[in-house]
Amino acid sequence: MPAFDNPPDPLKRPPADELEAHVALARSPRVGSVTFRRLVSAYGGVARALEALPEHAARGGLRNYRPVDMARVREEISRAADIGATPLLLGDDNYPKCLMDLTDAPMFLWCQGDLTLFDRPAVGLVGARNASALGLRMATELAQDLGSEGHVTVSGLARGIDTAVHEASLTSGTIAVLAGGLDVIYPAANAGLAARIATGGLLLSEAPPGLQPIARHFPKRNRIIAGLSSAVVLVEAAERSGSLITARMALEQGRDVLAVPGHPLDARAAGCNRLIREGAGLIRSAEDIRDALALPVQRVDGFHEETGAWDQGPMPDSARQLVAGLLSTAPVAEDSLIRVLGLPTQSVLSALMDMELAGQIVRHPGGMVARAVA
Amino acid sequence: MPAFDNPPDPLKRPPADELEAHVALARSPRVGSVTFRRLVSAYGGVARALEALPEHAARGGLRNYRPVDMARVREEISRAADIGATPLLLGDDNYPKCLMDLTDAPMFLWCQGDLTLFDRPAVGLVGARNASALGLRMATELAQDLGSEGHVTVSGLARGIDTAVHEASLTSGTIAVLAGGLDVIYPAANAGLAARIATGGLLLSEAPPGLQPIARHFPKRNRIIAGLSSAVVLVEAAERSGSLITARMALEQGRDVLAVPGHPLDARAAGCNRLIREGAGLIRSAEDIRDALALPVQRVDGFHEETGAWDQGPMPDSARQLVAGLLSTAPVAEDSLIRVLGLPTQSVLSALMDMELAGQIVRHPGGMVARAVA
Repeated sequence: MPAFDNPPDPLKRPPADELEAHVALARSPRVGSVTFRRLVSAYGGVARALEALPEHAARGGLRNYRPVDMARVREEISRAADIGATPLLLGDDNYPKCLMDLTDAPMFLWCQGDLTLFDRPAVGLVGARNASALGLRMATELAQDLGSEGHVTVSGLARGIDTAVHEASLTSGTIAVLAGGLDVIYPAANAGLAARIATGGLLLSEAPPGLQPIARHFPKRNRIIAGLSSAVVLVEAAERSGSLITARMALEQGRDVLAVPGHPLDARAAGCNRLIREGAGLIRSAEDIRDALALPVQRVDGFHEETGAWDQGPMPDSARQLVAGLLSTAPVAEDSLIRVLGLPTQSVLSALMDMELAGQIVRHPGGMVARAVA
Repeated sequence: MPAFDNPPDPLKRPPADELEAHVALARSPRVGSVTFRRLVSAYGGVARALEALPEHAARGGLRNYRPVDMARVREEISRAADIGATPLLLGDDNYPKCLMDLTDAPMFLWCQGDLTLFDRPAVGLVGARNASALGLRMATELAQDLGSEGHVTVSGLARGIDTAVHEASLTSGTIAVLAGGLDVIYPAANAGLAARIATGGLLLSEAPPGLQPIARHFPKRNRIIAGLSSAVVLVEAAERSGSLITARMALEQGRDVLAVPGHPLDARAAGCNRLIREGAGLIRSAEDIRDALALPVQRVDGFHEETGAWDQGPMPDSARQLVAGLLSTAPVAEDSLIRVLGLPTQSVLSALMDMELAGQIVRHPGGMVARAVA
C-alpha cells in the first residue's frame, strides 16, 4: 500500500539524544532564542552547538562557562514523560509556525493535548482575575462566538476572564499557556479545567514540570499567548495589570491589540480604556474581532530572525572590541551596529553571540542589544 | 469724563425697525443663512435685502414669491419682549463669534441671561435622556471639573445627562439651547432649572416664543450646541439617539467629537462606543477633555462664508440655465460649479441665490448645493 500523502505525525517524538541536546542547549546559561538558532544553524545541529558553547563564551571573555548540568536535563525530560507531556522543539515540524518569528521564540515547549489546534486561526482573550459580572459574561460570549466560527481561543488559565474563556470554548478549541510547569496548576481550583483542556484542548508551558511560577515567569508566558494569536483582546483590565503586559508584547510582536471598553468610573476598565486611547481597536462583539482580523495588521518595527546559515570562520578580537566600544546599557539595533561598524554581518553577529554567552550583552525585543548591567 | 475704553453693551437692543426687518428676512421662505448674509452684504442692510427678495425669486423662476407676513414678525417680537428675551442678530457685535462660521449660522437667536458666557471657552456635554446612574455621575463630575477650570458647559436641557450637566455647572456657567420657544420648557420638570439658567446662566433659542418643539427642530438645535462648543462630549448615548446627531453636526462644523465609553453589554453605551470606533476621542475625565482641546482639531472640509461684498449687476438668464444644467439631486460644491462653469464667481453665486429663493435648489453643509427634489 503506497504511503504517500500521509501527513507528518504531529505527536512524533524526537530521538532521545536529540531531545536531550536540545533541552540542554536551551537551558544553558545565557542561551536565548536568537543565539540558539544561530548556533544550531552554524553547527548543523543541537549536539554540536552545545559542545561549542564554552569556546564561544571564552572568545567573549568568559573562561569558566559551564553549560547546564546534564542530570538536570535528564530529570526534566523524565518528569515530563511521567506526566505525559510531549516536547515541541523549535525547528521541528510540529512546532507552531506562528511562534517562529517571535524575537524570543520559545526554544521548546512541553505540551499536553491536541496539536492540530495550531492549524486553526487563534485569538488571545485575556483579562482581569477579579473580573466583574459583565466582564465574565463578555468573555464567555466572545469565546463562544469565536469558537462557533472556527477560531481557537488562547488564554492563561488564570482566575476570572481566562477561566471564563477556556470554559466557554472547551469544545470548540482552546489553548492554555501556563507560566509554571504543566503539573503546577494555579489556581488549584482550575485543576479540573486544566485536565479537560489537556485532553480536549491544548496545555502548553515553556517551564520544566514542577516549576512553581513566580512573578517574572508571567510576562514570558504572556509573550507566548500573544505569539500564538493573530490578535489579543483585553476583555477587562485595570491599570498596571498583567494583561497590559500581554498587550504590549502583542504589539511588539506585530499582533493586533484589541480591547473591550468599560465605563471610566469602573476601575476594572481603566487598562482597556487606556489601550483604546493609545490606538487599540474597540471591541463590542466577536464581529468586531472578525473585522479587525480582516484588516491588515499595523506591524510595529519587528525583528525577523535570519534563517540562512552563516560563516563561522575565526573571529578577530577586534570585532568584539569594536562592538563593545559602541554598546551602552541603552539598547541599539543589531542592524545599526552592523552598518556603523562596516564589518561583515557574520563577524558582528558572531561577536554578539560570544558576548551574550559571556554575559557581556543582553538582547531586547525588536533585534536590539545592549551592554549587560554589571 | 472721557468715555473711551468702555466695552460695547452686550445687552444693547437693536433699533425696532432694524429688528423687524432682520426677523422678517430670516423668517421669509427659503432664506437660509448663506443667502441671508449674501443679500445683506449685497444690499447693505436687512431692510433693502427684504425688499429685493421677490425680484430675486422671480429671476429664479418663481413669480409669486411672498416674504413672511409682517404681522407674524411683530407678534414674535412682542411675545419675546413679554418674556424678557433679548435678540442676538447675525452681524451684530453681541452675536457669538463661534457661530458665525457655521454653514447654517442662526440668523438670530432669542436669549435670556448672561451674554458674557460667550467670552469663555465652552464644551458641549450631551447624552441620553434615560441615562444610567454611572452616566449621570459622570456628567456631573465632568461638568463640575470643567466649570472649576473656567469652562462653560453647553447642553440641551433635556432629561438625564443634559439636566445633570446644567445642574452641576449652574454657578460656574452653563448655556442651555432649546429646540422650542424660550417659554416652552420641556420637560416641564425642568422649569425651575430653566429659570435659574435664565438668570445665572444663558438660555438660547432660534425658535419663536411659544413654539412647541417637534422632531425636526432638535437636529437644528443640536447644531447650535455644537457650534457654541469647541468640543462636544457624548456622555452616554444609545444607537440612533439625538446625541449622535449632535456629534455628526459637530464633526461637520469642524468641532472635536469626544465620547465616554461604556461596557458593550450596556446598550446605553452603544452610540458612544461606535463613535470611538469611528475616531472620536475616548474620554475618561475632564483631564482627557482638556488634553483633546489642547490638540489641533481635525477639521473636516468646512464651508467658510464669504464676507466681502459682491457685484449685484444684471444677471444673465444663461448663468441660471448653465447652473441648472449642471445640478442634480446629488450635492456638489459651489466652488466646483464656479470652476466648471468658468463664469464670474458673483454671477454663479447670485444665480444660486435666486434659484434657492425660487425653491429650485437646496443647500447642504460644507458649501454644497443640489437640485431640489420636486
